[in-house]
Amino acid sequence: MPLTPEQKAEIDRLRAELTPTRRATVAALEEILYEAIPVLDHGFVRVIDYMGDDAAVVQAARVSYGKGTKRVSEDRGLIHYLMRHRHTTPFEMCEIKYHVKLPIFVARQWIRHRTANVNEYSARYSILDNEFYIPAPGQLAAQSTSNRQGRGELLTGAEAARVLHLLREDAERAYQGYVEMLNEDEGGAVRDAGRQGLARELARMNLSLNFYTQWYWKTDLHNLLNFLSLRADAHAQYEIRAYAEAMIGTVDRWVPITAEAFRQYRLGGAHLSERGLAVTRRLIAGEPVTQEESGLSKREWTELMATLGRPG
Amino acid sequence: MPLTPEQKAEIDRLRAELTPTRRATVAALEEILYEAIPVLDHGFVRVIDYMGDDAAVVQAARVSYGKGTKRVSEDRGLIHYLMRHRHTTPFEMCEIKYHVKLPIFVARQWIRHRTANVNEYSARYSILDNEFYIPAPGQLAAQSTSNRQGRGELLTGAEAARVLHLLREDAERAYQGYVEMLNEDEGGAVRDAGRQGLARELARMNLSLNFYTQWYWKTDLHNLLNFLSLRADAHAQYEIRAYAEAMIGTVDRWVPITAEAFRQYRLGGAHLSERGLAVTRRLIAGEPVTQEESGLSKREWTELMATLGRPG
Amino acid sequence: MPLTPEQKAEIDRLRAELTPTRRATVAALEEILYEAIPVLDHGFVRVIDYMGDDAAVVQAARVSYGKGTKRVSEDRGLIHYLMRHRHTTPFEMCEIKYHVKLPIFVARQWIRHRTANVNEYSARYSILDNEFYIPAPGQLAAQSTSNRQGRGELLTGAEAARVLHLLREDAERAYQGYVEMLNEDEGGAVRDAGRQGLARELARMNLSLNFYTQWYWKTDLHNLLNFLSLRADAHAQYEIRAYAEAMIGTVDRWVPITAEAFRQYRLGGAHLSERGLAVTRRLIAGEPVTQEESGLSKREWTELMATLGRPG
Amino acid sequence: MPLTPEQKAEIDRLRAELTPTRRATVAALEEILYEAIPVLDHGFVRVIDYMGDDAAVVQAARVSYGKGTKRVSEDRGLIHYLMRHRHTTPFEMCEIKYHVKLPIFVARQWIRHRTANVNEYSARYSILDNEFYIPAPGQLAAQSTSNRQGRGELLTGAEAARVLHLLREDAERAYQGYVEMLNEDEGGAVRDAGRQGLARELARMNLSLNFYTQWYWKTDLHNLLNFLSLRADAHAQYEIRAYAEAMIGTVDRWVPITAEAFRQYRLGGAHLSERGLAVTRRLIAGEPVTQEESGLSKREWTELMATLGRPG
Repeated sequence: MPLTPEQKAEIDRLRAELTPTRRATVAALEEILYEAIPVLDHGFVRVIDYMGDDAAVVQAARVSYGKGTKRVSEDRGLIHYLMRHRHTTPFEMCEIKYHVKLPIFVARQWIRHRTANVNEYSARYSILDNEFYIPAPGQLAAQSTSNRQGRGELLTGAEAARVLHLLREDAERAYQGYVEMLNEDEGGAVRDAGRQGLARELARMNLSLNFYTQWYWKTDLHNLLNFLSLRADAHAQYEIRAYAEAMIGTVDRWVPITAEAFRQYRLGGAHLSERGLAVTRRLIAGEPVTQEESGLSKREWTELMATLGRPG
Repeated sequence: MPLTPEQKAEIDRLRAELTPTRRATVAALEEILYEAIPVLDHGFVRVIDYMGDDAAVVQAARVSYGKGTKRVSEDRGLIHYLMRHRHTTPFEMCEIKYHVKLPIFVARQWIRHRTANVNEYSARYSILDNEFYIPAPGQLAAQSTSNRQGRGELLTGAEAARVLHLLREDAERAYQGYVEMLNEDEGGAVRDAGRQGLARELARMNLSLNFYTQWYWKTDLHNLLNFLSLRADAHAQYEIRAYAEAMIGTVDRWVPITAEAFRQYRLGGAHLSERGLAVTRRLIAGEPVTQEESGLSKREWTELMATLGRPG
Repeated sequence: MPLTPEQKAEIDRLRAELTPTRRATVAALEEILYEAIPVLDHGFVRVIDYMGDDAAVVQAARVSYGKGTKRVSEDRGLIHYLMRHRHTTPFEMCEIKYHVKLPIFVARQWIRHRTANVNEYSARYSILDNEFYIPAPGQLAAQSTSNRQGRGELLTGAEAARVLHLLREDAERAYQGYVEMLNEDEGGAVRDAGRQGLARELARMNLSLNFYTQWYWKTDLHNLLNFLSLRADAHAQYEIRAYAEAMIGTVDRWVPITAEAFRQYRLGGAHLSERGLAVTRRLIAGEPVTQEESGLSKREWTELMATLGRPG
Repeated sequence: MPLTPEQKAEIDRLRAELTPTRRATVAALEEILYEAIPVLDHGFVRVIDYMGDDAAVVQAARVSYGKGTKRVSEDRGLIHYLMRHRHTTPFEMCEIKYHVKLPIFVARQWIRHRTANVNEYSARYSILDNEFYIPAPGQLAAQSTSNRQGRGELLTGAEAARVLHLLREDAERAYQGYVEMLNEDEGGAVRDAGRQGLARELARMNLSLNFYTQWYWKTDLHNLLNFLSLRADAHAQYEIRAYAEAMIGTVDRWVPITAEAFRQYRLGGAHLSERGLAVTRRLIAGEPVTQEESGLSKREWTELMATLGRPG
């Protein structure tokens, strides 16, 4: 459970307050507002605030004076049309803000998405908690032999045990060094009155990349979908994918029609190259095609056949 | 009055709907939500939606689980501190969306602020209204003789009358050409069944830059304040300044503490150059200083003396 | 010819100067550096500066100390791999700067690409030239009946003549009003010493959207390719497409391997939706499929069949 | 010395190649092109490429066909004018690319500047070197007692020695854990053929934040100056300031007039708040002012007096 009782109480207090608003509201998202959705061993994602809904996409696309929405089927048609033709600006008119607790190495990938607003917990200013990520046994994979930046088979037995032991031991030792240099406990109590303690901005460098940090992260719906299409993808590292998947659930609640169009036209679709398209046309026409004459590399051919649902 | 009765009714309908929300709400801004604040002769600014309030700035700066706010004086102190030290990211955690009706030449200046989301009314798709900006007599200024990109004295008499006549006549003629080429009336009715009508994406090029366009424009509080500090400035062209001033009123309602800090540390303050600071120190020390030995140009000297409240 | 003799001489002077540099240089692009490539009736695109080449993409992807390039085939493979998997950051490591002369209505579409740097000729500060865009007869299209934001059949005969006449006459009148209000000729000479002349920042509003403006526009290779994929597309308005096509020629000279990969994986490829992919798989398997049972709308079906090279 | 002989040789090879170009070149910057400027114990900054020079700022501001420059004094005056009035877009027309080797905790601060292009060395793909940052004794400061995010007095004696020992020992242990989990040496040699080795993307999480990473970082001159004004500031953490200071040296070589204006109007200047300005005016007028009646907090008063060169 990633929350302390005090944190839980703060969240409950926020959730208990209801205020009337003239703004667009989304009941399904309000239901989980502020609640922590657990991710990995100590992390979470919480929706803190949102602006707009599916109708706001329609309203902006029509630059309307009122809601701008017409019959449900027309609105749905318009949203699908916008997604299909990559008319992205109406989706930028919705905004969402998350509070995320995540390992530093995940934060380092995440921050590469530049079109977002971020406030991170400051380890120059405050002391980080003694919380670090240890992969579940089902995620302890060997280096892939075919893909230089991916995972292969699961480690098991003694090797897995050794890895888990090392990760835990080194993280614990790093934290002991951290608080010893700070001369402060996690709670802020001075350890040895005869020492000054190293500046926080320096001591933090002793912590390893699996320690948890936190931030407020805010972005618009279009850039969120970009983030999700890259980070919920099978090529993304499992640990960031776990966050992306939790966030897709919040998008389903927030803008269900947009989420449906996103699955139809982006997540579930496929991009064919010029040569891949030529092969596809010939296959449909019933012509035999081989990798050798296709102009595709072996890897591209294999991927194309998988996309087209054919034996490689 | 820039709104048609239908538009007014649509707005009233939106305003009448109240929904409970768990999100931060700001009563003073809800009061004017969706309402058109008139600007120039046919333009307006309307707040369409907002996310966050002063407390959300505090909450993000503290990366808190709950509201994050403490005593009012502490929160106010923190917001002032953030503004003073240009810690800009917590202000990015609030977001606002406007619907704006504005002359095209104003839109061309406005769009240069890139960190915003925009959906503009499409003249490829729809027909523009016959509405154009004519300056009020009090704004009909001659070219400045001292500042190559500013206004000088007011035009009066025959010259002023001639200018107003020309602006109006040319805009009307431009619109007549536009609808004749379209072969459609403003309302969309075909004029001459024997003609096809020029494509809208082409016909629009006949309109002049004082015609009104509209857009939805959404940005975060930090970037909004940047926009306002540049566009509410005395060096900005009057027409865009009129919009900036209307928008400052909405910021006062939305985030009053941030607005106060913005006035204290940005709008009302002054930036001194290295040499300007040296002159200031000498003046405080009671030393006589002249422009010649100050290292400042005549214009810089004049500006500095004005800033310091001294006769030039 | 869009250039005056003075402008031509300035360009020739720049072209004549050669300086040795340690930076990556591209001979094929140097050949046309600074030269105006004509676009539309009075516009142009000129490459003013560039940073990097195909090898710089490789170098950045490898974060190398030297050139980072290996055998040509390996470098080409890497660039194709990056393009195929949308690893976009290495392409951001190349930068290009253009000087563009373009009608204002084209500039209004262009500026929507926000990830770029822009300096536009200031009509607050200077007087605009008497140059406006008049479509060639082959571009004088009627409104499309099937696509609300596109062109249909060509206008011909009296209607075409009337459109051309109106466009020209209204633009000329707009310019006459402009210089009369300014009380200055195009060259800056005062017309009537007894008048003050309207401020430039106001007078410009009388000009129509087909007048030419100019700007310096600078962007990185990744964002340039995004711009080109949207603006060289058949759905883009012809006038901006004309610029995009001229620019693709400069990309071919600058980064030929990247340009080739761009054609292979983006321009020449196709994106299939989830349902479109399901239809494709069934067609390859030899199953009969109809639009009705496909789940695709008629328009989507027609587009898919066109993509797959089948009769609709 | 942060470079291996192979890296040094690669750099020398690049430096030896001179090619003629028609582009703007800057001899003083070419002199150090590709060379590593050492920063901290194992880091460096290298200028890899650049676009434009002081004249390019002038050229863009004038949207010129040729160089756009006039007499040196006029160009200098224009650049100072642009800097003084925060006309930032002409400075965006110059671009620079660096290769930087830096500790991960510095990289985490640096990446917050979003308007830049980045390619980082991938620890999903490759093995990181056994190089970590250990502060020099002169940087081993205690937590500040007055500023919650700053440094106070230097640590000395046993406490300093203990900190240095802990930092080094923990980093070494972290690296040992890293290569043991990888089952590979730094050079890539398999350690134990009987083990598979943990995936690189997982093993890297064992490294601490003082390990060095590297990236290519590219930005425009305006955003670079923003970065430098924040990171060369006394409030910035020493470790990132060391990089900023090395980079200011490269700006001096590249665009000396812009660098001079930057010092005059930004680095060396001061911003006064509304109340600070009121106090300044009264001091110049010879009036006595006290902190109590100034409306300034004690800290603001102290800072203002320091700015104005008066005893607090």
